[in-house]
Amino acid sequence: MNGNISELIENVVKNVLDLQKIDNITLEIAKVLANVVEAKAKEIGVNAVVAVSNNAARPVLVECMDNSYIASYDVALNKAYTVVALKMSTKALKPLCQPNGPLYGIENTNNGQIVIFGGGDPLEIDGKIIGGLGVSGGSEEQDTLLSAYGAEVFKEIIKQKGRTA
Amino acid sequence: MNGNISELIENVVKNVLDLQKIDNITLEIAKVLANVVEAKAKEIGVNAVVAVSNNAARPVLVECMDNSYIASYDVALNKAYTVVALKMSTKALKPLCQPNGPLYGIENTNNGQIVIFGGGDPLEIDGKIIGGLGVSGGSEEQDTLLSAYGAEVFKEIIKQKGRTA
Amino acid sequence: MNGNISELIENVVKNVLDLQKIDNITLEIAKVLANVVEAKAKEIGVNAVVAVSNNAARPVLVECMDNSYIASYDVALNKAYTVVALKMSTKALKPLCQPNGPLYGIENTNNGQIVIFGGGDPLEIDGKIIGGLGVSGGSEEQDTLLSAYGAEVFKEIIKQKGRTA
Amino acid sequence: MNGNISELIENVVKNVLDLQKIDNITLEIAKVLANVVEAKAKEIGVNAVVAVSNNAARPVLVECMDNSYIASYDVALNKAYTVVALKMSTKALKPLCQPNGPLYGIENTNNGQIVIFGGGDPLEIDGKIIGGLGVSGGSEEQDTLLSAYGAEVFKEIIKQKGRTA
Repeated sequence: MNGNISELIENVVKNVLDLQKIDNITLEIAKVLANVVEAKAKEIGVNAVVAVSNNAARPVLVECMDNSYIASYDVALNKAYTVVALKMSTKALKPLCQPNGPLYGIENTNNGQIVIFGGGDPLEIDGKIIGGLGVSGGSEEQDTLLSAYGAEVFKEIIKQKGRTA
Repeated sequence: MNGNISELIENVVKNVLDLQKIDNITLEIAKVLANVVEAKAKEIGVNAVVAVSNNAARPVLVECMDNSYIASYDVALNKAYTVVALKMSTKALKPLCQPNGPLYGIENTNNGQIVIFGGGDPLEIDGKIIGGLGVSGGSEEQDTLLSAYGAEVFKEIIKQKGRTA
Repeated sequence: MNGNISELIENVVKNVLDLQKIDNITLEIAKVLANVVEAKAKEIGVNAVVAVSNNAARPVLVECMDNSYIASYDVALNKAYTVVALKMSTKALKPLCQPNGPLYGIENTNNGQIVIFGGGDPLEIDGKIIGGLGVSGGSEEQDTLLSAYGAEVFKEIIKQKGRTA
Repeated sequence: MNGNISELIENVVKNVLDLQKIDNITLEIAKVLANVVEAKAKEIGVNAVVAVSNNAARPVLVECMDNSYIASYDVALNKAYTVVALKMSTKALKPLCQPNGPLYGIENTNNGQIVIFGGGDPLEIDGKIIGGLGVSGGSEEQDTLLSAYGAEVFKEIIKQKGRTA
């Protein structure tokens, strides 16, 4: 994690005072996560859509970088839904949904809201999922990297607040 | 418009360098508009959802303030769609859609995406619509005030950049 | 009907040889109707979307004039559906669907495909509906005029072929 | 490319004067592309549905040849959406969406609008996608051939206008 981001995190830690007691993602934190993911996306040459959902899998924030794929809006939003609705990353979900896998077909059962490829990560505090992060816009590898990065930044923030993931 | 907002606008004007040539909303501008609308919403005691669409009525940004109505996500998003898709504010659309009105029933014809009450305003540069702003979360009066306020701030920004609405 | 259109009709009459026996709209006729409606729309300053459906209320053609409303695609398409699905113009349907009217609420029963304001006309041969025409893009009055105009041109064409509406 | 088509292209080149500056597909060009694809479809014995979308993946034109599959309307329309929304042909998309592939399951995440087999091609000017072409009605091989053919004709047209794909 580079210096720029460390500074940003410190600022969040200083100013987001209610982090000590939250059990749900706030818009303030969602914006911070979107900003850090977008900065990283720009760095690696991806025009990403970033979505953040709350502990009820409801959307809190969606942001589409300029020239991102039109299709990425739904994909990012649904990744953020999926990780809270199924309590796992979309990367972990993927192998379960392949032909003959235990959840094969689940991408059809929830009005098409379940995404079964990488780029979505749950956001946890004290072992409880309080939100989800979905990223779409690059290759699956890039999206997976970007959502994992956002989740790592989130962990860093809450650690500095004396809480655990 | 109070001093706080003026300062914010000045900052935008200084930093959003490409405003002189754009014909489509950018994420950078969408974020600024969301921030000013959210600040104003907070000021009047509303937990708002703010949505911004581009010149093709595609979503660019959606932000849900903490404790906003769950229903407001769709409403704000669809207001931002409506104002670009029909090239008018949802306030102006409203009377046309009442019983016996010329567009009565249109709220059903577009997969339910047409919102026919106040809280949505088009964003224009040089007489062309380059995006839309949708706000939901308060009373109709409050939503109407908030989206009109955001549109006014947008006008102020582009005026200072030497462009006209 | 001006000279230009008369000529176009004559051409159709000469070349569309199978009109004598058809009981369903063809793409060839749909294109002619779209062209005449678009020419008239241009003449009265409207950017229209024109849709033509067949005798099963399935779409045959949709054309969106440059700078037409994004919302007009669904509206025109659904008007073309409505007039075949309910065997009447959307103008005739309108009063039946007002509050307390006999069909009040029908705009909700068919997945939002029923349009209850002017701009849709059935296309008939020998008293049988063989297709539908839907127009959206101007005021209700303009759309009503444009679809009625297209239906009139259709009547003229089949009359010259020795068939009746 | 046979003589008939060359002539048609020449005509377009002569008459479509604004091609030099467009960054979005126009109805005029969409009609030309539909005509050439339909002529070629007829030649190879296919009743095709042809759809053209603009640079925002919004539909501009849909035309259903007589006796085309009812199912082809949605398929062609969604192919035209897919190629702009994901910035690649549906043929190129196909291998990415097979079991264990990086985008396996994406055909479910966008309200079923992503088509993952051949028959859709983006339309580009100066390396920017300004629209999409979707064809459905024959075998996958035939649909792929037809949309590629339409895209090739488009390239020929803009080349003669002094622009590059």
